[in-house]
Amino acid sequence: MEYKSYMADRVKNMKGSAIREMFKRMADPEIISLAGGNPASELFPGEELSKIAGKILMTNPTLALQYGTTDGYPKMRDCARQRAEKVNSVGENDAILIMTGANQGIDLTAKAVLNKGDKVIVESPSFIGSLNAFRTYECGLVGVTVEDDGMSMEGLEDALKNNDGVKFIYTIPTFQNPTGVTMSLEKRKKMLELASKYDVLILEDNPYGDLRFSGEDVPTIKSMDTEGRVIYAGSFSKILSPGMRLGYIVAPAELAEKIEMLKQVNDVHTPMLTQLMCVEFMKKYNIDSYIAKNRELYGKKCACMVENMEKYFPKGKVKWVTPEGGIFLWCECPTITDITPIVDRCLEKKVAIVPGSNFATDIFAPSNMFRLNYSSATLENIEEGIRRIGEVLTELL
Amino acid sequence: MEYKSYMADRVKNMKGSAIREMFKRMADPEIISLAGGNPASELFPGEELSKIAGKILMTNPTLALQYGTTDGYPKMRDCARQRAEKVNSVGENDAILIMTGANQGIDLTAKAVLNKGDKVIVESPSFIGSLNAFRTYECGLVGVTVEDDGMSMEGLEDALKNNDGVKFIYTIPTFQNPTGVTMSLEKRKKMLELASKYDVLILEDNPYGDLRFSGEDVPTIKSMDTEGRVIYAGSFSKILSPGMRLGYIVAPAELAEKIEMLKQVNDVHTPMLTQLMCVEFMKKYNIDSYIAKNRELYGKKCACMVENMEKYFPKGKVKWVTPEGGIFLWCECPTITDITPIVDRCLEKKVAIVPGSNFATDIFAPSNMFRLNYSSATLENIEEGIRRIGEVLTELL
Repeated sequence: MEYKSYMADRVKNMKGSAIREMFKRMADPEIISLAGGNPASELFPGEELSKIAGKILMTNPTLALQYGTTDGYPKMRDCARQRAEKVNSVGENDAILIMTGANQGIDLTAKAVLNKGDKVIVESPSFIGSLNAFRTYECGLVGVTVEDDGMSMEGLEDALKNNDGVKFIYTIPTFQNPTGVTMSLEKRKKMLELASKYDVLILEDNPYGDLRFSGEDVPTIKSMDTEGRVIYAGSFSKILSPGMRLGYIVAPAELAEKIEMLKQVNDVHTPMLTQLMCVEFMKKYNIDSYIAKNRELYGKKCACMVENMEKYFPKGKVKWVTPEGGIFLWCECPTITDITPIVDRCLEKKVAIVPGSNFATDIFAPSNMFRLNYSSATLENIEEGIRRIGEVLTELL
Repeated sequence: MEYKSYMADRVKNMKGSAIREMFKRMADPEIISLAGGNPASELFPGEELSKIAGKILMTNPTLALQYGTTDGYPKMRDCARQRAEKVNSVGENDAILIMTGANQGIDLTAKAVLNKGDKVIVESPSFIGSLNAFRTYECGLVGVTVEDDGMSMEGLEDALKNNDGVKFIYTIPTFQNPTGVTMSLEKRKKMLELASKYDVLILEDNPYGDLRFSGEDVPTIKSMDTEGRVIYAGSFSKILSPGMRLGYIVAPAELAEKIEMLKQVNDVHTPMLTQLMCVEFMKKYNIDSYIAKNRELYGKKCACMVENMEKYFPKGKVKWVTPEGGIFLWCECPTITDITPIVDRCLEKKVAIVPGSNFATDIFAPSNMFRLNYSSATLENIEEGIRRIGEVLTELL
């Protein structure tokens, strides 16, 4: 049988994440991966969660194993609210929905808002998972350059002025994926002003906001939103565990109601056990001191990476902005146009990095950039990985 | 702010499940609910799963808490394969994808296949979660009457003949929700023949197939599919735990690849811990003997419900087909046109049932039917619930 004729237009030319393709080539355990976006697993609170899970299932099996409600277990919604309120990101008319990972919240928000042909303004580059989610609703993506202090506001105003049918701006303002860049306070205020002027929503994705290891916190865009224009996506993936798939959406109740209906027909509800485990973990342990340990580790790993980049990368040929938090570091090689041969050569030397094209609105345009991750590898592997990349860069730049 | 103008057409007039609305009115703990679709919680293997979860998190926290792969943990895919192969429902060119509940598989299959304006042929009545999932892709639903031995095949051929753009037939052939009816072998063969003749796919949803307590098994439609035309949705919700949200899709690899991409941008992957728990449960315990216990209990509960319906319902005024498995019983009151006053009166008497309109392709058309669930209430509550419904029926019919 031939299946193409049964496929919806939205998937006919859909390309999976090239990062995942790369992971398949990475089955070789000798490969040092600086390619993924995994948080450090060495700090996972396995023992604590083991006791918690064991106890929940022993004392309250019905709650943990029976159907739950679509908007989330009420105490889990309280936990999400607590995290969001910590950064002043719950508005008066907002509702909170628990999601099976923040990505589901982004996907379903897009589904609630986008008609075919609508447009979304995104940072260029941006997180491939969100861009691909938006693409499945057959919308147009309008990319706006990311500068050292976040999305270009001139670029944003141009994009808003020159495009009809823009429904929302998607932004990861803090420790952006893939650039690691944080948007300045001025730009955040400006973005709110422009969203109001051109009457569009903002979808603020903040999975890394808790992971600052230097510099000063910048308020979330949501915290300064006086009009109810910002939908906020939060995540427990980088502060507790990604494998548990726990995230949340804070959105104006009227929109949240629609997103909840879409979740109901999507996965009905987020698994109960992982929600209950998160609630118990936050009740029994101090999640902020757990996050602090992660922050410290990431600061150390980032410093190690930068130190070795300075040591091994050919002088003056690679540009980067040292991040103040998060898990990514973004490099540009201004003397070339296409990073592909370098990425391939790195893989031959058994170190994996991600070419910039993956994060672009036009994934077919060549890119001279690449993304490094410092959260998941050990300090030894970060040094050795950067040394090998340095060899390749010295050879090919 | 006014949010309607930001909403996608697909959600503007979307109605949430009225069953969930009913649940909100059911906060009163005195209410006997025969309305839901919950499996019996009294048999949940809480102690076994408690030990399993505790051990997994203690001995392998990284696997349980780190990111996993979108298509599912490989051993979990083996478990799903094992269940599907038990009913000969894995074809040579098929791939298996783990889903966060079978509903996600149905939603994403629809997303991979349906363009706006396409059509889906469904049983009338059918499962509201699937119908609402299809509706979010702005397709047309064509309902075909369910007879005592399953979907009308004359109705199906008419629907195929008279509708352009039909992409697939959605069916729950065994112990259908809401009717409890099982499609005969002859009709299953006929459905395959018609699907081939009119060149459409079949989406076979089989969450209740393991729950037969009388009569003989009927082969799945998928097991007789020689052309690769059937996508099969399986679930662990009714045989292990719904709160764990574990289901799977068996689909031709070419389609499965697209569904996997859609899952990647939806929830990235199904939570790891629940997958690992299911794998360990199936390794250490005999899931079929656990299912057998459930089957026995449901047989007993169903018999109790039917016995009391015969005792308390006004003679000759309510029609039903006694199910041979599953969790639902469907009643028709041929002397009236609208069941709403009866459902409302039942709720006043503190017993909840679901009006038939919820399961129709046209939810605004009045229905003289209602659905009963016998899996979740105790035997005492089934008797008392049916007695009260009998009082209302005697009063109002």
